[in-house]
Amino acid sequence: MALIVQKFGGTSVGTVERIEQVAEKVKRFREAGDDIVVVVSAMSGETNRLIDLAKQIMPQPNPRELDVMVSTGEQVTIGMLAMALIKRGVPAVSYTGGQVRILTDSAFNKARILSIDDQRIRTDLKEGRVVVVAGFQGVDDQGNITTLGRGGSDTTGVALAAALKADECQIYTDVDGVYTTDPRVVPHARRLEKITFEEMLEMASLGSKVLQIRSVEFAGKYNVPLRVLHSFKEGPGTLITLDDEESMEQPIISGIAFNRDEAKLTIRGVPDTPGVAFKILGPISAANIEVDMIVQNVSNDNTTDFTFTVHRNDYQNALDVLKQTADAMSAREASGDTKIAKVSIVGVGMRSHAGVASRMFEALAKESINIQMISTSEIKVSVVIEEKYLELAVRALHTAFELDAPARVSE
Amino acid sequence: MALIVQKFGGTSVGTVERIEQVAEKVKRFREAGDDIVVVVSAMSGETNRLIDLAKQIMPQPNPRELDVMVSTGEQVTIGMLAMALIKRGVPAVSYTGGQVRILTDSAFNKARILSIDDQRIRTDLKEGRVVVVAGFQGVDDQGNITTLGRGGSDTTGVALAAALKADECQIYTDVDGVYTTDPRVVPHARRLEKITFEEMLEMASLGSKVLQIRSVEFAGKYNVPLRVLHSFKEGPGTLITLDDEESMEQPIISGIAFNRDEAKLTIRGVPDTPGVAFKILGPISAANIEVDMIVQNVSNDNTTDFTFTVHRNDYQNALDVLKQTADAMSAREASGDTKIAKVSIVGVGMRSHAGVASRMFEALAKESINIQMISTSEIKVSVVIEEKYLELAVRALHTAFELDAPARVSE
Repeated sequence: MALIVQKFGGTSVGTVERIEQVAEKVKRFREAGDDIVVVVSAMSGETNRLIDLAKQIMPQPNPRELDVMVSTGEQVTIGMLAMALIKRGVPAVSYTGGQVRILTDSAFNKARILSIDDQRIRTDLKEGRVVVVAGFQGVDDQGNITTLGRGGSDTTGVALAAALKADECQIYTDVDGVYTTDPRVVPHARRLEKITFEEMLEMASLGSKVLQIRSVEFAGKYNVPLRVLHSFKEGPGTLITLDDEESMEQPIISGIAFNRDEAKLTIRGVPDTPGVAFKILGPISAANIEVDMIVQNVSNDNTTDFTFTVHRNDYQNALDVLKQTADAMSAREASGDTKIAKVSIVGVGMRSHAGVASRMFEALAKESINIQMISTSEIKVSVVIEEKYLELAVRALHTAFELDAPARVSE
Repeated sequence: MALIVQKFGGTSVGTVERIEQVAEKVKRFREAGDDIVVVVSAMSGETNRLIDLAKQIMPQPNPRELDVMVSTGEQVTIGMLAMALIKRGVPAVSYTGGQVRILTDSAFNKARILSIDDQRIRTDLKEGRVVVVAGFQGVDDQGNITTLGRGGSDTTGVALAAALKADECQIYTDVDGVYTTDPRVVPHARRLEKITFEEMLEMASLGSKVLQIRSVEFAGKYNVPLRVLHSFKEGPGTLITLDDEESMEQPIISGIAFNRDEAKLTIRGVPDTPGVAFKILGPISAANIEVDMIVQNVSNDNTTDFTFTVHRNDYQNALDVLKQTADAMSAREASGDTKIAKVSIVGVGMRSHAGVASRMFEALAKESINIQMISTSEIKVSVVIEEKYLELAVRALHTAFELDAPARVSE
């Protein structure tokens, strides 16, 4: 008999019919003998409706009062799901974030969870009830209602699982797991049985948007086994856990992530003196532009070239700033390119395998794809290439790292 | 500088524009130097929307979970009104029933207020904030969300005013006060400056639906001066207070109430023995039918006639039950009539004035209106007449008791 926290997002509870389906699923787990805590989001569209209503009063809504309004979305869903369970003969009770004292800081609209009082939930579970908790919300130490910010229901699920020392936190979504890469690009991409928290973080931040990054960090920190599953299809999904030494027979690379939302900027012929990186990126940061990859080459005639990437929406703004910097520094040139894509291979296996990067470069060279930038971390190698080669590159890497093979049997 | 509790119902906060108007009104009071606590209902239609949603899941919604859902209606409004005030430079803060600990019993959907912790509100008022509280809701001693039942926002307003010892509880509605009778029947009916709690109770229960009866009882019990005002028109409204000995120059009758929702049932030739009333009304009550007026005449040849009124919707059902009773008791006849109306004169003045009832009967006799039933209380005389004479009777009584005169200057 396991204790499982199940989280269902806005689409999974978007209609009365879907809430009934979720209740059926929860009932099956309950009947299998598991203790169940369910975390739900607002019905899809509801949060936006409430924000629109607030903005009609105040274009920049007061943060505290916005949370008072927006938190009602989940409160409606918990009541509906609890009723759908009770109707099926499954004893159930619903709680708002405040009622189970999900204590947060007072950063309205983007609060962080500090602690959870698990006493009430444990009592209900002991008495055989399914506990339905509103995601995305809490209270601060003054009893003010707070929300965790968009996507925060995942974080609620993980935090509850950590507080209750649950056996698993199941995140139900509209995909049946985490894939080696986007199946729209590589039709024979396959679902991963398992992936580590670290890999998941690199995959997620690189564009495979399945889970909210914060919840994965949180799960990793408290070692909460996280499982991504499809809300309405059967299947084991993908389990996200700590790096499991026993099963180190895993492949070197777990997946290929990619991103075409970035643009590249280069400043050439900059005097190679200490502090040059700050002189270039300081003004960019001051303009509230986030920088992703940064590459600086070795100097040449006491000058150097400096390249970085930003979100494509920030490109023009960043280029304007960079041109001013170039003038001020008497640099040779500031230029940029939006027709780029970033492709990354991710896997904890590369820690213990040499030559992973060169195997990647070889695979790209075979397809005559030129690499414009390279950046590496412990479990990831990213390259920037011309955008038109993106699909070709992803497919070549998927094959080169033997991800096309039929799903291996896990565990 | 007074402390005023202002309650705005669902129609008064039914749109963004109306919420802005309410904020303007509150701002004007605040600028005049008063401390203000505002109680609001859900935007009109919202409570029904939430109940419908619950019924889609469970035709007989689970009472606890229904309250979880329905209480969100007011929670949205408090956030909106607080923002509308803040936008106008009026410091404001919103609270749910639970946040200011409006403690109730655990009778979900129809809870009763036990106590209110006024500490938090007092602190806010001291610091210059307008406090916006969600009406209609509270929490029980387990922290479960409860609602007070339909119209409960009036009760929240009065309870808050009592707890805070407010100078006045203002109930904003879609009428500009309490009238001597329905202006649709008597065009020169006039607004009362003042009325006592007792009179208001008799007027309300007899069909002049301005305030929720429970809130008037509550206000009377705690002696909270209650004022009925129009949400969007200027004017002093009607003040409802304790019987004020000083101003006993008041007229004998304050108003004429009437009701055409009732039907009359009679059982004739019943043996006049002890317990006969119970034998007749027991089965009616067992069928969940509420009885209003009851009249039993003196006996005649050891048999008596027994007449009572019920809501017109219950008429057929009541008649069926009564016919069975008549058979069982060997009564002469059970019959009924739906074409009746009840007209009542209400006023604390009749306590100290003899002959009020006969003046009423005289006025009706002058118009050749036959009286079918009579029932009296300390501050009220009600008669049942044929329905078609209703308007004529109300107008005749309005004139006979000198209610047509131009409004007297009060206070």
